[in-house]
Amino acid sequence: MAAIEAAGQGVAWKDGDPGIGPTYLFLDPDGHELELYWETEWYAAPDELRPSLKNQAQAYPGRGVCVRRLDHVNYLAQDVPRCGDFVRDVLGGRVNEQIQLDDGTISAQWLHFTNKGYDLVYTRDWTGTRGRLHHVAFAPDTREDIIRAADICLDHGVFIETGPHKHAIQQTFFLYVYEPGGNRIELCNPVARLVLAPDWRTITWTEAERAKGQAWGLKTIESFHTHGTPPVA
Amino acid sequence: MAAIEAAGQGVAWKDGDPGIGPTYLFLDPDGHELELYWETEWYAAPDELRPSLKNQAQAYPGRGVCVRRLDHVNYLAQDVPRCGDFVRDVLGGRVNEQIQLDDGTISAQWLHFTNKGYDLVYTRDWTGTRGRLHHVAFAPDTREDIIRAADICLDHGVFIETGPHKHAIQQTFFLYVYEPGGNRIELCNPVARLVLAPDWRTITWTEAERAKGQAWGLKTIESFHTHGTPPVA
Amino acid sequence: MAAIEAAGQGVAWKDGDPGIGPTYLFLDPDGHELELYWETEWYAAPDELRPSLKNQAQAYPGRGVCVRRLDHVNYLAQDVPRCGDFVRDVLGGRVNEQIQLDDGTISAQWLHFTNKGYDLVYTRDWTGTRGRLHHVAFAPDTREDIIRAADICLDHGVFIETGPHKHAIQQTFFLYVYEPGGNRIELCNPVARLVLAPDWRTITWTEAERAKGQAWGLKTIESFHTHGTPPVA
Amino acid sequence: MAAIEAAGQGVAWKDGDPGIGPTYLFLDPDGHELELYWETEWYAAPDELRPSLKNQAQAYPGRGVCVRRLDHVNYLAQDVPRCGDFVRDVLGGRVNEQIQLDDGTISAQWLHFTNKGYDLVYTRDWTGTRGRLHHVAFAPDTREDIIRAADICLDHGVFIETGPHKHAIQQTFFLYVYEPGGNRIELCNPVARLVLAPDWRTITWTEAERAKGQAWGLKTIESFHTHGTPPVA
Repeated sequence: MAAIEAAGQGVAWKDGDPGIGPTYLFLDPDGHELELYWETEWYAAPDELRPSLKNQAQAYPGRGVCVRRLDHVNYLAQDVPRCGDFVRDVLGGRVNEQIQLDDGTISAQWLHFTNKGYDLVYTRDWTGTRGRLHHVAFAPDTREDIIRAADICLDHGVFIETGPHKHAIQQTFFLYVYEPGGNRIELCNPVARLVLAPDWRTITWTEAERAKGQAWGLKTIESFHTHGTPPVA
Repeated sequence: MAAIEAAGQGVAWKDGDPGIGPTYLFLDPDGHELELYWETEWYAAPDELRPSLKNQAQAYPGRGVCVRRLDHVNYLAQDVPRCGDFVRDVLGGRVNEQIQLDDGTISAQWLHFTNKGYDLVYTRDWTGTRGRLHHVAFAPDTREDIIRAADICLDHGVFIETGPHKHAIQQTFFLYVYEPGGNRIELCNPVARLVLAPDWRTITWTEAERAKGQAWGLKTIESFHTHGTPPVA
Repeated sequence: MAAIEAAGQGVAWKDGDPGIGPTYLFLDPDGHELELYWETEWYAAPDELRPSLKNQAQAYPGRGVCVRRLDHVNYLAQDVPRCGDFVRDVLGGRVNEQIQLDDGTISAQWLHFTNKGYDLVYTRDWTGTRGRLHHVAFAPDTREDIIRAADICLDHGVFIETGPHKHAIQQTFFLYVYEPGGNRIELCNPVARLVLAPDWRTITWTEAERAKGQAWGLKTIESFHTHGTPPVA
Repeated sequence: MAAIEAAGQGVAWKDGDPGIGPTYLFLDPDGHELELYWETEWYAAPDELRPSLKNQAQAYPGRGVCVRRLDHVNYLAQDVPRCGDFVRDVLGGRVNEQIQLDDGTISAQWLHFTNKGYDLVYTRDWTGTRGRLHHVAFAPDTREDIIRAADICLDHGVFIETGPHKHAIQQTFFLYVYEPGGNRIELCNPVARLVLAPDWRTITWTEAERAKGQAWGLKTIESFHTHGTPPVA
């Protein structure tokens, strides 16, 4: 918090979110609102959702896609490295992978705080807007769950933007859909990929490498660079 | 029908099952009731269950185990080969695999009418009772669905008898559970296994081979030879 | 054979293919060479390839993609329905699904002889050439095997044309690659899809329906309509 | 290192392991030899093993089980909590899950240093021997890879001790086999399970809970408590 204040990005303490205690609101350099919290209350499942195995929080839902956890958030930003530097220097993240265009611009950065390959991503907003969301990603258990999710979305009229396929960057198996409000949701499975080396070196992808598309050759969809929320007027 | 009557196993024509026209009721030699039908009415999904792809009958349910089809029925019988002969000679099935005990007894037969490895199975009832059911099997899309099903059953208090594992015979990936009424249900995935050779030769397993258990070594559970429905008084 | 001769498409008896006895060579209306055989010799695995389970022909290879069987063949043809009629009327197949363009032309037909959704496919050759191959398809056990195959192809420099994705027609999970000689190979997984209804009705897809692309929205790749083997001079 | 020396468990610096620099050898309280290293040399793949995606160390092997990483090591120990305390207090691990018998004895502990659920496990050796190995675990990409592995082991004569199934503790999908020298190898898939809560509380399983067997009911195999390496004379 001291570091955030020193960086001039702090806003205020807030209270009122159930189960996580007071939160400290601040802004990243692109204007996205972020909050820190510490006093988490452990979830106690009601009887009808009690799990059979005590090392899990709740019974397996068995409805719809069955995501297990929030995996990461991807923001659009006017100035990607300025945001990445803030996350690295002030919040303690590390840049795991990034894209550098031929003119030297860093157009995307994948940052992580944990052993997961990435927790927070910044991607350049081609519309030049500030403060927008690219997508929120949820992880179900398996790649097969992602494929099932595609079937479920297809039959429920949920718009599928692209996938399932595997990203070249981070090698995540993915499906992108829009929820009814227009926000892009990624359903992702990172397989067994973890960053365990303490001296991991940032992977930098060039324009030529990115031109190959996703891992197995699917071209990156055009709307990926422009569709964000809120929509640009 | 003529063949069934000639075999003295015919009972009567019935009417009243929705969507399949009149049915011809008959008995197999162990006393199980079977019916033949022909005038199937094609299912037309109501609006809310209409599929996105016109080559499927209904939208993907996205709830629970999501089985796709009835795969096979397994009866318990006092005299297995007598039943198998009836199915082969009168109904036109073929014996794909079977178990022969050291004393020469055929204790189980897997029969098929289609390119599936088996549609109807007879297993010896160790209690000596006639006319009982061993299990009904439903196939979801994948092996991963069977594993998910185990999680769903675990958290919904559905009794898991054995599995998931792979059968040695027919190599089906399986999970056996009891529905609340006590009937055994198999959730099965036959992977890509089809009998396409017109001259397929019946595979006969010996007692010694069966003593190895299921494909990867799981011992066949004791209740498999005795639990059937209705229960023996 | 008599039916083929009557149709004027017979060529000659041949001998020399190991393990399948004499073969009867004939042509489909587009000029593709086909052969019929009957006297198949059952494969006996040498010691080092002997399987642990006696109901499979050979030990699981555990190398590369591990396909289990030839699934289907897809020919390009100048006149699709003429080929489809021949297969239906002379060879005894049935048309399971087909594409009909707005001008009435049947541009593709999926035919089957077994309970599999399709064994033989004819697709219109946009180059107008006769007698070419679109692809040969092999089925491994699972969809996961198809995804693994994509990784294997990627790292072995095998050209991936499109996929993995799911076809709208037949709903097969697919990956298309070119083998070093230029022939297109499909690795396919039909999941649990079988045609078991004796009164299955041909599904006809319109141009508008096909414009939606594959099952989850992937656009059909342009080379699909033109790349065939042998290449057009 | 200072902490290890202070605990009286240090042995000596060594050199000679390729690629990891000098190592500091020490013993855990049960006498297992452990080494610390820091100066890791990054692997540079030779041409024939070069990956297509630059964020992976080597091309996907495409042979056999295709494990991706060493996942964890499980030691047998005379005195489990003494080892666990050492790992926690001296090495900085945390106890994620454990088993406590009715008489109060801690008979197994799962410890982690990273966000993985466990990196090091101690299990009571029922033979009372010190310093033995229970198993080493390797993680392939998916659960389907574990199932494939069972097929590969079956057809290559590799002894399968138990599995595939899912552990109740840690919920890992597992397969246990013995390599030719007799060491137990686990092939494991932890699905998407990570410990991300900084205030995770140790889960303690009772004897009654463990009596239920593994997640879906498979009984824990007897040899699990006695087979270790080296064998007891």
